[in-house]
Amino acid sequence: MAVLFHRLVIVGVGLIGGSLGLAARARGLVEEIVGFGRTEANLRVALERGIIDRYTFDPAEAARGTDLLLLAVPVAAMQQVTAQFVPFLPPGCVVTDAGSVKEAVVRTMEAFLPPTLPFVGAHPIAGTEQAGAAAAFATLFEGRLCLLTPTPRTDPQALARVRALWEGVGMRVEEMEAATHDYVLARVSHLPHLIAFSLMNATRAAARDGLDLLVYAGSAFADMTRVAASPLEMWRDIFLSNREALLNALADFEQALAQLKTGVERGDVEILTAAIEQARSERYRFVRLRERT
Amino acid sequence: MAVLFHRLVIVGVGLIGGSLGLAARARGLVEEIVGFGRTEANLRVALERGIIDRYTFDPAEAARGTDLLLLAVPVAAMQQVTAQFVPFLPPGCVVTDAGSVKEAVVRTMEAFLPPTLPFVGAHPIAGTEQAGAAAAFATLFEGRLCLLTPTPRTDPQALARVRALWEGVGMRVEEMEAATHDYVLARVSHLPHLIAFSLMNATRAAARDGLDLLVYAGSAFADMTRVAASPLEMWRDIFLSNREALLNALADFEQALAQLKTGVERGDVEILTAAIEQARSERYRFVRLRERT
Repeated sequence: MAVLFHRLVIVGVGLIGGSLGLAARARGLVEEIVGFGRTEANLRVALERGIIDRYTFDPAEAARGTDLLLLAVPVAAMQQVTAQFVPFLPPGCVVTDAGSVKEAVVRTMEAFLPPTLPFVGAHPIAGTEQAGAAAAFATLFEGRLCLLTPTPRTDPQALARVRALWEGVGMRVEEMEAATHDYVLARVSHLPHLIAFSLMNATRAAARDGLDLLVYAGSAFADMTRVAASPLEMWRDIFLSNREALLNALADFEQALAQLKTGVERGDVEILTAAIEQARSERYRFVRLRERT
Repeated sequence: MAVLFHRLVIVGVGLIGGSLGLAARARGLVEEIVGFGRTEANLRVALERGIIDRYTFDPAEAARGTDLLLLAVPVAAMQQVTAQFVPFLPPGCVVTDAGSVKEAVVRTMEAFLPPTLPFVGAHPIAGTEQAGAAAAFATLFEGRLCLLTPTPRTDPQALARVRALWEGVGMRVEEMEAATHDYVLARVSHLPHLIAFSLMNATRAAARDGLDLLVYAGSAFADMTRVAASPLEMWRDIFLSNREALLNALADFEQALAQLKTGVERGDVEILTAAIEQARSERYRFVRLRERT
């Protein structure tokens, strides 16, 4: 595949940033990769694993000659982190992100970046509950979906190049309004994470008589709480940055929960049957959808 | 391993019943296995897969010469299903179950069975969201936990033989009060299933503008809704039979959910940090627990 960018700076060489580094290098999409982050231990892991060619803590050095700046940091930190690079980035350098919330990020970055630095909002929908460069792997993105959220202000050429990058590492790429993205992700990702944290906390609260409930948990519980191990800052920021859509999603969940609760309280076979059957048929539809892609 | 039972009748040759058949045969724990159920197509699958030696729809024929009757049917159906066999079962035949609710089942069966038919309440904590003989596999129980819920009325010899059976197929076996079992399982299994059904239904309710949310769901959503495909009757019965414990567990979950909701509503970093950190540390503890067993 042709080289898309000469020098990629990954800000935040974690699961997403690190996996992109591995994948982009393996496919020959970038010539050089520079790591930037807060924790030297993590950057050393990234260097040892061949994710990056070098790392630096100097924004000016990182910015020099860069034509792609990837922000793979918690969404609330993006503006502050980017501010360090802006004075040093060459005109035309594409700035993009991998955040799970798009409206707040795109609005902030478009208002903040000079017109010489085109911004493209992106969200590769891939990940695990793991964090850090040690958890990165080159195949993370293969066959998965990446949503780009351009606006009327988005530079078409920058958009095309960011699309080519994510397609280059094996993703299917779709464009979507940032607000729609946030509506959708609130429901299929942010709410499920909030539920997983809550379920884990509810179990902790229920410990009694020296009985450790977790000893008796099976695979259903294990799967449903897997993402409760996800990084704190990342998820705190997502919850705060997608507040309205998340609260709406939560309200719908509470309503669905109340339906089943009513069925249990009243011992109402019909209510329970209807709710469970609807859930089962949706789940089967979901499994078929995934099998097709 | 020594033969524990000469003739095992499996009532309900589904995932649990069928897997026990495969595992017990592979380990030489039973000499003959007879299938009994509602659906001939499923019993034929069981026969073809070598789970059972034969099947019958005649309770008298099934009961003849049987020394273990395994009830692997939805909990609300157990009494009615067992009633067909009682007139024909030889004295001393052990009756046991594999239900996920124990207090209601044990109470019902002890009141219902004659003293000549010892009952042992059991719950092998293993399973997938799949159902039917086609989904059964011999290794399902290996390394997993089986809870037995004897009462003062339980025949010690029958208890020992049922313990030997589940240990024989690779399970760790613990004894527990039926009420404690139901308290624990409400929290680590029944509540998570109820949540999975609700999450699936909430997503369905949220479809808008021809947008199919499920297309955008990633692995978090996939894992959290896996068990929403679980069998209707089984879970309807569990919810109804473990009503009180489930409602208590649900109340604790609603409280944990409300904590995170408050954090989001108020944009309160401290509340969110505390709730997410607590969930993360519990999840890590759970992962360590599972690695040890």
